Amino acid sequence: MRIEVLILLVLLSSLNAFAQSIQSPDGKLSLSFGLTANGEPTHQLSYRGKPVLQKSKLGIELKDQPGFSKGFTLLKTDTSQKDETWKPVWGEVNQIRNHYKELTVTLQQPAHKNRRMIIRFRLFNHGLGFRYEVPEQTDLKYFIVSDERTEFNLTGDHKTFWIPGDYDTNEYIYSTTKLSEIDATSGKAAQEIAFKTPIAANAVQTPLMMKTSDGLYINIHEAALVNYPAMNLMANKQTFSLSSHLVPDAVGNKAYLQAPAQTPWRTIVVSDKAADILTSRLILNLSEPSKIRDVSWIKPQKYVGIWWEMHVGTASWNYSDVGNIKLAETDWASLKPNGKHGATTANTKRYIDFAAQHGFDGVLVEGWNVGWEDWFGNWKEEVFDFVTPYPDFNVTELQQHASAKRVKLIMHHETSASVTNYERRIDEAINFMKQHGYDSVKTGYVGKIIPRGEHHDGQWMVNHYVRVAEKLAQNRIMLDAHEPVRPTGLHRTYPNWLACEAARGNEFNAWSTGNPPEHETILPFTRLMGGPMDYTPGIFQIKRDYYQPGKKEQVHTTLAKQLALYVTMYSPLQMAADLPGNYERFMDAFQFIKDVAVDWDDTRILEAEPGDYITVARKAKNKDEWYIGAITDEQARTANIPLTSLTLKRSYVATLYTDAANAHWENNPMAYQIQRFLVNDQTRLKVALASGGGAAISLRPASKEDMKKLQRYETSR
Amino acid sequence: MRIEVLILLVLLSSLNAFAQSIQSPDGKLSLSFGLTANGEPTHQLSYRGKPVLQKSKLGIELKDQPGFSKGFTLLKTDTSQKDETWKPVWGEVNQIRNHYKELTVTLQQPAHKNRRMIIRFRLFNHGLGFRYEVPEQTDLKYFIVSDERTEFNLTGDHKTFWIPGDYDTNEYIYSTTKLSEIDATSGKAAQEIAFKTPIAANAVQTPLMMKTSDGLYINIHEAALVNYPAMNLMANKQTFSLSSHLVPDAVGNKAYLQAPAQTPWRTIVVSDKAADILTSRLILNLSEPSKIRDVSWIKPQKYVGIWWEMHVGTASWNYSDVGNIKLAETDWASLKPNGKHGATTANTKRYIDFAAQHGFDGVLVEGWNVGWEDWFGNWKEEVFDFVTPYPDFNVTELQQHASAKRVKLIMHHETSASVTNYERRIDEAINFMKQHGYDSVKTGYVGKIIPRGEHHDGQWMVNHYVRVAEKLAQNRIMLDAHEPVRPTGLHRTYPNWLACEAARGNEFNAWSTGNPPEHETILPFTRLMGGPMDYTPGIFQIKRDYYQPGKKEQVHTTLAKQLALYVTMYSPLQMAADLPGNYERFMDAFQFIKDVAVDWDDTRILEAEPGDYITVARKAKNKDEWYIGAITDEQARTANIPLTSLTLKRSYVATLYTDAANAHWENNPMAYQIQRFLVNDQTRLKVALASGGGAAISLRPASKEDMKKLQRYETSR
Repeated sequence: MRIEVLILLVLLSSLNAFAQSIQSPDGKLSLSFGLTANGEPTHQLSYRGKPVLQKSKLGIELKDQPGFSKGFTLLKTDTSQKDETWKPVWGEVNQIRNHYKELTVTLQQPAHKNRRMIIRFRLFNHGLGFRYEVPEQTDLKYFIVSDERTEFNLTGDHKTFWIPGDYDTNEYIYSTTKLSEIDATSGKAAQEIAFKTPIAANAVQTPLMMKTSDGLYINIHEAALVNYPAMNLMANKQTFSLSSHLVPDAVGNKAYLQAPAQTPWRTIVVSDKAADILTSRLILNLSEPSKIRDVSWIKPQKYVGIWWEMHVGTASWNYSDVGNIKLAETDWASLKPNGKHGATTANTKRYIDFAAQHGFDGVLVEGWNVGWEDWFGNWKEEVFDFVTPYPDFNVTELQQHASAKRVKLIMHHETSASVTNYERRIDEAINFMKQHGYDSVKTGYVGKIIPRGEHHDGQWMVNHYVRVAEKLAQNRIMLDAHEPVRPTGLHRTYPNWLACEAARGNEFNAWSTGNPPEHETILPFTRLMGGPMDYTPGIFQIKRDYYQPGKKEQVHTTLAKQLALYVTMYSPLQMAADLPGNYERFMDAFQFIKDVAVDWDDTRILEAEPGDYITVARKAKNKDEWYIGAITDEQARTANIPLTSLTLKRSYVATLYTDAANAHWENNPMAYQIQRFLVNDQTRLKVALASGGGAAISLRPASKEDMKKLQRYETSR
Repeated sequence: MRIEVLILLVLLSSLNAFAQSIQSPDGKLSLSFGLTANGEPTHQLSYRGKPVLQKSKLGIELKDQPGFSKGFTLLKTDTSQKDETWKPVWGEVNQIRNHYKELTVTLQQPAHKNRRMIIRFRLFNHGLGFRYEVPEQTDLKYFIVSDERTEFNLTGDHKTFWIPGDYDTNEYIYSTTKLSEIDATSGKAAQEIAFKTPIAANAVQTPLMMKTSDGLYINIHEAALVNYPAMNLMANKQTFSLSSHLVPDAVGNKAYLQAPAQTPWRTIVVSDKAADILTSRLILNLSEPSKIRDVSWIKPQKYVGIWWEMHVGTASWNYSDVGNIKLAETDWASLKPNGKHGATTANTKRYIDFAAQHGFDGVLVEGWNVGWEDWFGNWKEEVFDFVTPYPDFNVTELQQHASAKRVKLIMHHETSASVTNYERRIDEAINFMKQHGYDSVKTGYVGKIIPRGEHHDGQWMVNHYVRVAEKLAQNRIMLDAHEPVRPTGLHRTYPNWLACEAARGNEFNAWSTGNPPEHETILPFTRLMGGPMDYTPGIFQIKRDYYQPGKKEQVHTTLAKQLALYVTMYSPLQMAADLPGNYERFMDAFQFIKDVAVDWDDTRILEAEPGDYITVARKAKNKDEWYIGAITDEQARTANIPLTSLTLKRSYVATLYTDAANAHWENNPMAYQIQRFLVNDQTRLKVALASGGGAAISLRPASKEDMKKLQRYETSR
């Protein structure tokens, strides 16, 4: 053979073997794509020249036909780049840069009629996103995904912050272990979760947060989860490899697709700085732009609600204690009220008045509608009708009262996971909302899904959540979804979808072993990577024995940390979750909640370590105000809060809400202090955080009066 | 022990062993109930003193708890009787007698907290109905039925007319074998049914028709199937016992119930006369009375439709031949029409004009709405939207044209078995109907059910069909359901529910091996026991090679038998199913279809033998007209039609539409003759029926002119 031909052949085969590489815009991340000798697609990712993902396979398996996982040849590659900025409707920042290099590989299977699949990679400065695409083609129209073969082959036994993989719930307590020590059966209060479908001992969910022994931070999740099931990860504890595991449907299939089709983006955020994980906008950048043209009706908001009193047991959702009702056959007026119903006309008026007095936008009322007597745990299909109030809840009177006070009532649609029922009734429910002045709804999915056999995180339910968001958007209604699949950036596409729960929220502290002090230092690195969380912070009455002597439950933070959460747990929808009476006992501390913004021009992560501490500063949208939150886990520590990076152009009054010297989340959680100082761009605050503690700071421009009266903050403090 | 105590104990134990007996009002049927030594409920049924059902066990099994099948004691028994008459909104007769003796046994399980179950028996002159009831009680609220233990222990190897048990379809050809020869795998063209879920080789469906060697006719079915899955029967071919087998849901459970609850009625119709099986009103009498108060808008009707031309391949449902569409993303106006679309404005006008000219109430149009390009076999959820017409179907123009001609367009909602999609869209679909003047809809459920894992005949779908009937009733819309579970008398409760398909209809003759000549002599004894069938008779162009030379398919009857079916196949909704052009070729024969009524004052079964022949006479409602239909299987025979039982009070003109002398369903199916005679209450007609043939006869009062012109029928003919 002639040498030129030989060289050409070698080049061609290496082309096939290792087809393409791209770098991130700043050159730190490097992605390579290639095919193995068996035509299996692989990729690998390096950061500053060192591997983050070793060669990891890619692909999809199909039911009853050959899969898209091997036997590929490379048909063509394309590279491109993008650098643009866009403005979110609301967010942690008011402008986002979308800057990436893109590699698209078109693969073909000669043995299967030249079927084609595309893998699209987008490499950002702080991470990678990639997805599978099945283009329109002659020999493939409808197909069923039986599995996905995405591997993340990690380079070591990384420290991992994880919750068990599960088809139905994400309300677990986080475990922090080495990859090799992952054991989803290890307990951690899993029995407190009523409805769960754990997968296996080595299964974990995403977002998954890791830290290597070299101090590199890695976060794996997905973006734009639509028309596909959620991805869990199976950990190989010897090889430190993670493999995708999709949530099945009622008959064991994973996804029903029709070409042209694409999967969600699989995302890997990487940095040697923890703060960069939190400020990465990769997942938003990979999500589709807003489908809502006129967004003028979408408003970040703060709300109170008839809710916590049910969780601490001083009120009930249900009107009567009859154990067994049939929705269409019950004469509600004839039932004997139990005298503990939370959602009464009188109580709702109290909350409306409180909200109006203190500048809150909305009042959530749970338990307003018939059906709560036997809603829980019966797998009941005809459970709620979403339009019939209890006899003691006067819809029209409250509509007028709220309107007169310029407060919005927030609708509640607990579906009890009977989703076929909800979908049948939602048009009527929306009409009811519009007739009565509601423009926001909190939905819930507590229970086992109907259609029976489906899962909260399967394709059918993923499509349901999106259908609801779309239908509400058409009707100019905002959404807060509880117990859905964890979010993946869709709040960019549907900006009326303000928040989700989709993790273990503050409510668990009311009636279970609760959330450990480190919980809120992990959530931003995990759950919040995909979207805002309605965490419902702001509980001042920390211990439950206040209501029922002898009860052991409590919130596992100090009061000051509860304030800080309004800044560290980003959400455009924030609840002041406690009872008005408890706020009235501590009105000086409550002032922070009244002041704090829910929409931002800018966000700075001043210091952060997953599982340990976070200090965040945010500038209120269109206002010359900053808010700072610092939290710690069970370890007391000093928060370092240099104001130098906040571009302060003048003097500000800083109001510091901090733990008292002897505060402690368990022993003395409600001890706090409030101090006020003058600060400027040179100020370096140092604040002592108690065990399970925090600090909340508001900054507003100093007036001439302030300049005279207040002391300047001395750094030596 | 003292002798009195001993006697008492013996009496008590025999009381327990064989608690109660009742007789039918005429004393011919006898039912006994008892408990076995293990506390298992049993019943046995005798006719004229001979057993029909030997001691047969009863009961229900529950999931995750002890069942309701043994360990019972008898708490109490009650007997009562009822004798009333009621008027159906429409029917084979205008008045129905409900006359029965009732036995109710209340059973208790001491070993399980005295849980209670009731079995209610109603014994009519021609049969038995019984059901299980679970009353409201402290220790049982929600429960899951895992199985039913109803046995029908027959007394011999009866001749049985059966189709295979199946969770999803009832479109099988009937087999006629001994019980011991039942083999559901034996073929009979099952592969022609696209979507089926056969159960087992020994499984059969209901209604099940049997004839003993003594000439006793027995029919087993159910009445009032609501909120429960359908019952199939498993045949024990050694003991001749049938056991209930319920259709499972997606996760393998059978029914989700909440006390107080009841099952459907299990029905056994018994007589030594085949005609009594057909005239039994037991299933209607066991169904709940009409829930619709104002029924003035409900009208039996005759219709034509753009339908058969698609089945014989001269037109298509789909507008274009694009193989793969996405409902929400397709620009329909840009698709290339295939030039064969049936549902065009022009073609629909043609049918409207034809209907108006010949006195038909309605015109069904299939294929009017977008989505037909890939509706079949893709298990596609977002398949139809029910409101978007194809570009060549002008809804408004046709609305006006139909209105001007005083003809109603009949809406078509083929769901493709994507039921979650239909339930989401049905409100919008109904609004569309009302906006455009539609007051009837034909639904279809062709395909695999979504929610995936559910079955056409499971509890969830049973509830769906009823939800649809209820919702349509609230909107004053009539319903014809195709591919649902077979009916069980619910057309009494929802009289807007005019008909179902739910069996192998005339359409199978267009594109498969078709329906053998005996098919229509079996259906009234099986499928029609539960309710009317939209069989779509009236095909004049019998053989398909008329359309495509070389094609072998044909209707397996003579033309005259097609006319007779309008009388022998009872339905308040009847289609003249052929193309107008074919009727125009045989307008003299078409006259019968134009004349025949669809609602009746009275019905007489003049002669009948399942699988062989049926001759029926019916009196048109509120008219002095009678219509007679006689059909036979592949055996040519003479129909004996004595008019003596028809209470004719005068002379009538009888128009006889009969097979020509040389007619034969296969060799010469379209040869017919029409004769007209004077008849009266002494006339005994004898009509020769060809192989696969029939005769249709209309009777109207003779005018003076008729009396002069026409010959009187001579019985010797």
